[in-house]
Amino acid sequence: MSGNSFGTLYCVTSFGESHGPAYGGVVDGCPPGLALEAADIQKELDRRKPGSSRHVTQRRESDTVEILSGVYEGRTTGTAIGFLVRNEDQRSKDYSAIAEKFRPGHADYTYWRKYGVRDPRGGGRASARETVVRVAAGAIARKWLRERYGVSIRGCLAELGEIAIPFKSWNDVDANPFFAANAALVPELEKFMDQLRESGDSCGARVNVVAQGVPAGWGEPVYGRLDADIAGAMMSINAVKGVEIGAGFASIGQKGSEHGDEMTPQGFLSNHNGGVLGGISTGQEVSVSIALKPTSSIRLPRRTIDTRGAATTIETTGRHDPCVGIRAAPIAEAMLACVLMDHALRHRAQCADVVENPRKIN
Amino acid sequence: MSGNSFGTLYCVTSFGESHGPAYGGVVDGCPPGLALEAADIQKELDRRKPGSSRHVTQRRESDTVEILSGVYEGRTTGTAIGFLVRNEDQRSKDYSAIAEKFRPGHADYTYWRKYGVRDPRGGGRASARETVVRVAAGAIARKWLRERYGVSIRGCLAELGEIAIPFKSWNDVDANPFFAANAALVPELEKFMDQLRESGDSCGARVNVVAQGVPAGWGEPVYGRLDADIAGAMMSINAVKGVEIGAGFASIGQKGSEHGDEMTPQGFLSNHNGGVLGGISTGQEVSVSIALKPTSSIRLPRRTIDTRGAATTIETTGRHDPCVGIRAAPIAEAMLACVLMDHALRHRAQCADVVENPRKIN
Amino acid sequence: MSGNSFGTLYCVTSFGESHGPAYGGVVDGCPPGLALEAADIQKELDRRKPGSSRHVTQRRESDTVEILSGVYEGRTTGTAIGFLVRNEDQRSKDYSAIAEKFRPGHADYTYWRKYGVRDPRGGGRASARETVVRVAAGAIARKWLRERYGVSIRGCLAELGEIAIPFKSWNDVDANPFFAANAALVPELEKFMDQLRESGDSCGARVNVVAQGVPAGWGEPVYGRLDADIAGAMMSINAVKGVEIGAGFASIGQKGSEHGDEMTPQGFLSNHNGGVLGGISTGQEVSVSIALKPTSSIRLPRRTIDTRGAATTIETTGRHDPCVGIRAAPIAEAMLACVLMDHALRHRAQCADVVENPRKIN
Amino acid sequence: MSGNSFGTLYCVTSFGESHGPAYGGVVDGCPPGLALEAADIQKELDRRKPGSSRHVTQRRESDTVEILSGVYEGRTTGTAIGFLVRNEDQRSKDYSAIAEKFRPGHADYTYWRKYGVRDPRGGGRASARETVVRVAAGAIARKWLRERYGVSIRGCLAELGEIAIPFKSWNDVDANPFFAANAALVPELEKFMDQLRESGDSCGARVNVVAQGVPAGWGEPVYGRLDADIAGAMMSINAVKGVEIGAGFASIGQKGSEHGDEMTPQGFLSNHNGGVLGGISTGQEVSVSIALKPTSSIRLPRRTIDTRGAATTIETTGRHDPCVGIRAAPIAEAMLACVLMDHALRHRAQCADVVENPRKIN
Repeated sequence: MSGNSFGTLYCVTSFGESHGPAYGGVVDGCPPGLALEAADIQKELDRRKPGSSRHVTQRRESDTVEILSGVYEGRTTGTAIGFLVRNEDQRSKDYSAIAEKFRPGHADYTYWRKYGVRDPRGGGRASARETVVRVAAGAIARKWLRERYGVSIRGCLAELGEIAIPFKSWNDVDANPFFAANAALVPELEKFMDQLRESGDSCGARVNVVAQGVPAGWGEPVYGRLDADIAGAMMSINAVKGVEIGAGFASIGQKGSEHGDEMTPQGFLSNHNGGVLGGISTGQEVSVSIALKPTSSIRLPRRTIDTRGAATTIETTGRHDPCVGIRAAPIAEAMLACVLMDHALRHRAQCADVVENPRKIN
Repeated sequence: MSGNSFGTLYCVTSFGESHGPAYGGVVDGCPPGLALEAADIQKELDRRKPGSSRHVTQRRESDTVEILSGVYEGRTTGTAIGFLVRNEDQRSKDYSAIAEKFRPGHADYTYWRKYGVRDPRGGGRASARETVVRVAAGAIARKWLRERYGVSIRGCLAELGEIAIPFKSWNDVDANPFFAANAALVPELEKFMDQLRESGDSCGARVNVVAQGVPAGWGEPVYGRLDADIAGAMMSINAVKGVEIGAGFASIGQKGSEHGDEMTPQGFLSNHNGGVLGGISTGQEVSVSIALKPTSSIRLPRRTIDTRGAATTIETTGRHDPCVGIRAAPIAEAMLACVLMDHALRHRAQCADVVENPRKIN
Repeated sequence: MSGNSFGTLYCVTSFGESHGPAYGGVVDGCPPGLALEAADIQKELDRRKPGSSRHVTQRRESDTVEILSGVYEGRTTGTAIGFLVRNEDQRSKDYSAIAEKFRPGHADYTYWRKYGVRDPRGGGRASARETVVRVAAGAIARKWLRERYGVSIRGCLAELGEIAIPFKSWNDVDANPFFAANAALVPELEKFMDQLRESGDSCGARVNVVAQGVPAGWGEPVYGRLDADIAGAMMSINAVKGVEIGAGFASIGQKGSEHGDEMTPQGFLSNHNGGVLGGISTGQEVSVSIALKPTSSIRLPRRTIDTRGAATTIETTGRHDPCVGIRAAPIAEAMLACVLMDHALRHRAQCADVVENPRKIN
Repeated sequence: MSGNSFGTLYCVTSFGESHGPAYGGVVDGCPPGLALEAADIQKELDRRKPGSSRHVTQRRESDTVEILSGVYEGRTTGTAIGFLVRNEDQRSKDYSAIAEKFRPGHADYTYWRKYGVRDPRGGGRASARETVVRVAAGAIARKWLRERYGVSIRGCLAELGEIAIPFKSWNDVDANPFFAANAALVPELEKFMDQLRESGDSCGARVNVVAQGVPAGWGEPVYGRLDADIAGAMMSINAVKGVEIGAGFASIGQKGSEHGDEMTPQGFLSNHNGGVLGGISTGQEVSVSIALKPTSSIRLPRRTIDTRGAATTIETTGRHDPCVGIRAAPIAEAMLACVLMDHALRHRAQCADVVENPRKIN
């Protein structure tokens, strides 16, 4: 399987470039009988859509999805679900500058070294706009997970640059343009972002994602672990540089007597493991945290080279997110949904006949 | 592909349990003509071997590897390389206690929930002893990477519990039982470990791994990214709870003007990206950092439940590493080697005809 | 990987239904730098297009392909190539009859049993119209194989019902609507087909496909054999019931002294093996032959059951090929091209460093 | 996934060479709880064992299997099942002759061209002795299929050279060394084989395999069809040159009114489709037929070249099957079992929630 597909049984294939005619994808392996219409996908696409506040890119895209196959009379048929999102706002701007220079922090140089050629328009295939495909595929997965297993998946911005955003309530998340789970901090975030935009610079972010209602037993030791697949999926999101499950890097400083989650007949007493032990879900909340680097496209001048190898400088103008992490929550949710659905299917393939023990604690 | 194999072209399949007759594996896809003998693998196995100091498990295993196929007259033939490591020290101890109780922090409960049955002897398939297979497969990969591309892969312990171990020299690593790249700290580490063992508790650790000499161009956007595959591989190692590439979680607090690595005709001016941009190697050092949780097997009593669901307590006696991170460097190196080799093969499959640009900066 | 993708490195993913909005696909893994435009694909689609003679279905489809990604300034970029073929002639006919009855020989019953639901319009996903995706993907593969390795792939109709069509010349193939490599037989074929149509019945066919110029060395023992992958690919074509490589079933009656192809410094003296030994190409012509069953949609009344399990009869009217084998040559060529390209890439991944022996005989 | 593994969820990985220390394999994805011991596998290995009559190779191998993992207290645990079969009868004969010459019909030349090196001892990896791994993996699959779904899989010799063996009874199969389902023909077969051996030549064969009790619904359109995967699996068996499902090549001469199997409330009226429609099982008997070429190792002198490219001749002495088809029935059964089990698991992964319609006809 090549690099533009992922998943073993819930398999997502993606295509499209930032300034090409369209993005699209194929979701293969979805069970038949799921009620599905374009609006189910659209709802999630709208959550990640550009232009929704002054703090994100002002590119104008309706991001309207068209379902091309796999659905008949409002239900999935079990065959491949093809979908398409046309690009609308490909400005006819002059790309010769960035066609001849490599933007620091971008994939310009690596694509050029790998492929010999590259599509420089808006980042081409490396554009974060590719995440529309992930969000679309994730929308189907999360709908199935919710209806079939009662799983709910939510994400929020946990750090914006150096500002920590203590979790207060999921209800706050949809009421502000930052996906912040703490409404009280929104004015501070807005002020920070306004200053950042003015400075021409960008900043990093942390996004937390959790899945509630995941049954115990999903995940395959020893390489196909649930947490391993989650880590790979998260790190495949543009700009992500780190992934944690549960206590994550804080585990380093913990003692075993603190980290190892004790159990009682009423359930686990803590969740340092993040919902996964030995690569298999415990039945607790699956909790993931990711680090997103600051946007590489900034207005400040930077040293670089051109395609002839000569030293030069570059300033990236245009409509860029000053913090890609702000719109990342729906994307991280989507990736978690896809991995969980893949493992739900894989688990029941192998273990459908395992008799549930009545003494299970969750 | 099921959970006990990984890799697309350099494909590793693993089997074995802690107290079964043997561990073994199959490496498929290795190019023909590589000089290979058991000693090449043995050398790496010996680096992770238990019992090498008082700070690690005292289980006595020679970990002798036997190559069963794929090598003829000292060279790989291009066919599947099968290998075997017999278990020797499976003490005939009474497992009834842990057969009926779930050890906190272990996979006991999740295996039981997933499969309905489990092999309780020494953790069965969930034992970290499975990493012998990874190290063996990695030994072949690193030999090929070194001989074919000049890639060298090294790892070291960067934090032991709350003790940070500032990097001083790779030369120090093999001269102490901690894989510490700083000989001056060894007395402090020894004292810490002696106290830890005495307390009956365990601690977490951070391990850093780097690959030098990786050419630009390895990795496949958008899901098959080099960093995504590295993250998945690292998170699949027992006890790993977090993975970072390059600046990792420190990226959150960075500005774009700091994080985005500038380029000159002499090369990159920094390496915050960790050797990967857009999922493709830049030609810089590939740098990875992982967090390992504290060992779950500790002598202190812990609350848990038994298989009938009743509350109980458990103390884990036996021969356990008080810090699994101490022996983890060779394992993380092996996983990085396997991923890099897989991508080396994948890259030349697709891009063998790309003409190298003479103006490349590395 | 689920059922709508195939190939390891040259990976084709397909979606679409007969009466849905569109068919489309994603080709992943194509090397960068290949000159490619829609016309290259269109040319092959036109060869399999319906309505091109009175002997095939009269469904009117322009089968116009749109390339959506992966190509920039007329060259492949190495990223996923998405393409789309809109359906145009979905007659608004009443499908209630076949929605409630199972057509003998069709996939109606099996889809219903597998998925619980099915799209009855024109066969839905089971329609042979899905082969547009295969032909499109094959068009890219054959172009690359020809330009990179000088491989040429051709197919012809070898039997039409009980009429054998002895091979005379490849030049004849494109000059008649049957893909017959023997112009002299065309009048007989036309007469046969006219009578068949009149009778309301259908017939089977044999199609032969060969690839010339395949270098020695492609194919992976022991399960990923070139011939095994060819057999799987051919059997995945609608209506195919048998596959032969080289002497095929005639091998049964051969002696070893006849079948085993002798070698001389000038090359092999025969090609009973069909260009593959031990799963690896020999450098000879790769020759494949397939059997296609008679079209299941016939005007004659047939016994069947309805979805409530009651006995009934069905006559299938509409625009159907009386012999699906007639248009199958371009499809079989496409599948062979895809498999060969996949193995070309796989081979150079593993064996790029093997030094060609100057004493090779081809 | 590389060439030495097959299967998506029931995944078999194989290693070993004819004169290396051992063959072995890993079966991944087997459901937990299956009663399994070495004797279950041994029984099937004994059916394909060499030396069981004068009509097959006289190589002496006990083919004793050792299970190394994945089974605990007589039940599969759901983890990878590793197994080993040591080679015993690797005669220390001089291989220099065949090391320097290519045996016609063998993989000697293609391995040499692909890999640059090859293990010439007894065919190395290309030896049909590799089928011990297939038979072992198939033994586990058929046991699970039988116990879980009531599927039974049987094979027989249908043609020996030009002698057709009309099917009479499955009971006859195990009572003669030819796997002939017709005891009356055994004397004729014995006479034929005695003459063949005396002549120093070899012959081809046809083997039929059927699976009874396969439920409707297994198989994945459009590339992952059940029949496509069966065709690939069968063609991957050494010496196989052709595969048919159901009516196979006879479909060419059939009319649609004959081939398309009519349905009644009591079931299908015929089985020309061979138990698969649209790539999905119908609930009828799955019937497969394969052609095996004559053994390439014959005592008669044959023209060939040596590794320096010079013309020479070769006679292959040693202990070879004069007809590899004779021992092929257990191998073909095993491959069919593995494919069916893989699809059983894949089917329930996606369609576990499909409500069985009470009006189904089987």
